[in-house]
Amino acid sequence: MSILTRPILEINLQNLIDNYKNLQKLCSPAEAAAVVKDNAYSLGAPEVSKALYDFAKCRTFFVAHAVEGATIAPLLPDAKIYVLQGIGEDSADLIKKHHLFPVITSWDMFEFWKENRIPSIKPAVYIETGLNRLGFREKDLPRFSEKDKQEFGLVISHLACADTKEHFMNQHQLQKFIELKNLYFPKLKASLSASDGAFLGNDFCFDMVRLGAALYGINTAPYRQNQMKAVVTVKAPVLQISDLEKGEFVGYGATYRAASNKKLAIVSIGYGDGIPRSLSNIGKVYFKTFGQLHEARIIGKISMDNIICDVTEISGLQVGDLAIVLDSDYTLDDIGRDAGTIGYEVLSRLGKNPRYKRIIIPAT
Amino acid sequence: MSILTRPILEINLQNLIDNYKNLQKLCSPAEAAAVVKDNAYSLGAPEVSKALYDFAKCRTFFVAHAVEGATIAPLLPDAKIYVLQGIGEDSADLIKKHHLFPVITSWDMFEFWKENRIPSIKPAVYIETGLNRLGFREKDLPRFSEKDKQEFGLVISHLACADTKEHFMNQHQLQKFIELKNLYFPKLKASLSASDGAFLGNDFCFDMVRLGAALYGINTAPYRQNQMKAVVTVKAPVLQISDLEKGEFVGYGATYRAASNKKLAIVSIGYGDGIPRSLSNIGKVYFKTFGQLHEARIIGKISMDNIICDVTEISGLQVGDLAIVLDSDYTLDDIGRDAGTIGYEVLSRLGKNPRYKRIIIPAT
Repeated sequence: MSILTRPILEINLQNLIDNYKNLQKLCSPAEAAAVVKDNAYSLGAPEVSKALYDFAKCRTFFVAHAVEGATIAPLLPDAKIYVLQGIGEDSADLIKKHHLFPVITSWDMFEFWKENRIPSIKPAVYIETGLNRLGFREKDLPRFSEKDKQEFGLVISHLACADTKEHFMNQHQLQKFIELKNLYFPKLKASLSASDGAFLGNDFCFDMVRLGAALYGINTAPYRQNQMKAVVTVKAPVLQISDLEKGEFVGYGATYRAASNKKLAIVSIGYGDGIPRSLSNIGKVYFKTFGQLHEARIIGKISMDNIICDVTEISGLQVGDLAIVLDSDYTLDDIGRDAGTIGYEVLSRLGKNPRYKRIIIPAT
Repeated sequence: MSILTRPILEINLQNLIDNYKNLQKLCSPAEAAAVVKDNAYSLGAPEVSKALYDFAKCRTFFVAHAVEGATIAPLLPDAKIYVLQGIGEDSADLIKKHHLFPVITSWDMFEFWKENRIPSIKPAVYIETGLNRLGFREKDLPRFSEKDKQEFGLVISHLACADTKEHFMNQHQLQKFIELKNLYFPKLKASLSASDGAFLGNDFCFDMVRLGAALYGINTAPYRQNQMKAVVTVKAPVLQISDLEKGEFVGYGATYRAASNKKLAIVSIGYGDGIPRSLSNIGKVYFKTFGQLHEARIIGKISMDNIICDVTEISGLQVGDLAIVLDSDYTLDDIGRDAGTIGYEVLSRLGKNPRYKRIIIPAT
């Protein structure tokens, strides 16, 4: 028996590289760019980018903010780093300093770019095809002069429903992208898809695919078995095992009441560590005892630092044993579904707490 | 008009100090300890602790993990820092090095403590009174010898339902705490309550109250008007304003369809910045134009870096204007309620993304 207190976040960079190479094949001959925004979906953009650069020869990266690009640019000497939120008064300095490539999304931003142009940088132009988020609307495009168009080095758009193979939006956006690209930016390299789009077929890949969620193990094509390896594993130690008597309550708000005598394990991880509180009384963890995997339900409200699990039926469990919170059998997608959200949001939270004991399995 | 790209997190340390002093009066004559676990609920434990130490003479702090205590100990020379998750093989070194005070929660941990005792440190003993999370159960307590009891410097427990004034658990836990404390630890200083318990009355305050959520502006006594000042404000710039035609869709999964022509604002903040994705098609932000505050509904799915707001009815809005995502009028508690969770979880997420532009208003 051990006494352990810290949750553990394990990041497998070799699996990340394997995922990249698999996706690269799927996209080929399009270039496979890596999306490392939100600090590589919370896992650490410097480590993730460097692994992709060194072990998979990835040379194009996408971040959301210039301040994110600044953390990786010094590690990736001849890479191109695009900034999806573009350029503004609060990011122009960093974009210049680190030689980042802004994605220009509107006329207002394009005017700003022309006043703050950086020699040797050719930004991307983002055209809107149906997501109705950022990007130039179709009616804006005729305003571009021939000279304006020469500012850009890449034309991109983004799919709204690519995780649903038969969704009508996919063909609609594909045709719109082809139409607008051919009409206004026929000479530019083009990129329409993120990971989910790559699974829709080669038509969707153009010159470059922007690989994000799937790199990190998320199933971005949920209509088929996940082809990706798990990149993140989360475990947390049992701090205490206690009896709970019939009729007793558990956790904040006394939302759980025992219908019979129970055995509880208090596990040292909570919503502060990114475990969605919506898993209260719903979620589960796994324990391995005597070589067998056992499911244990989370009971009561999840608190900031702890979850409470029903381990009544699990014999041989000891203090210091590790609860498996996330792994290749209970995935980001599973947790997202159980928590009423998506694996992307779960992943984005997990790596953000520095109190995790972080184990990085390097790529080779 | 400005072009701005980064969300802004403003932390008002003066309001934090004001909250502390107000709560201190409420608890008096009990000592007011500060709970700064989870990196001070994500706001930055070093800055928060130092402000409380310098401007409010706070000398007792609680963290969850030893690794959190290690980040603040060097800044707080003569403070006592308690570690709620206790001591184990993975934290004993840090506890010793930084002279932290572990909270001992079980017999197993107590045995570990006795084998790894640190001279001049008197840990706290945590007794369970109804939350059924960590802590010595009543039936364990007779095992303590008189010598064992002298190991400790403080006895604590924790309330399960203190945010509900009339909840039967409050009196139950209070009586149980008094009974067990008098029977087993009559000479120790005692602490039962966090912020929410302090509002239940002086009976609940004993020698020390552990002030957490209320310090940061959360209403921990939701049956009465919030007495706390807002400590966190979140704003994010409008990156783009666009028309949306009747029948068009918005965002991932095309979950929003316009029933009439609309005007959209794309705001540069998303779930990567801690905005709960469960606010998709439900949440709202505010804009100030011509001195008036206007509500704008979030439409479509919240994405990692952006939210899309319906600003059809708001005239005078410009690119670069700041959406008010959280402030003293639309509070952590409001967002928690709208997102189907509590303000605590919202707060715990907000400060965790380093890409925020952080503005700290110092205490004076």
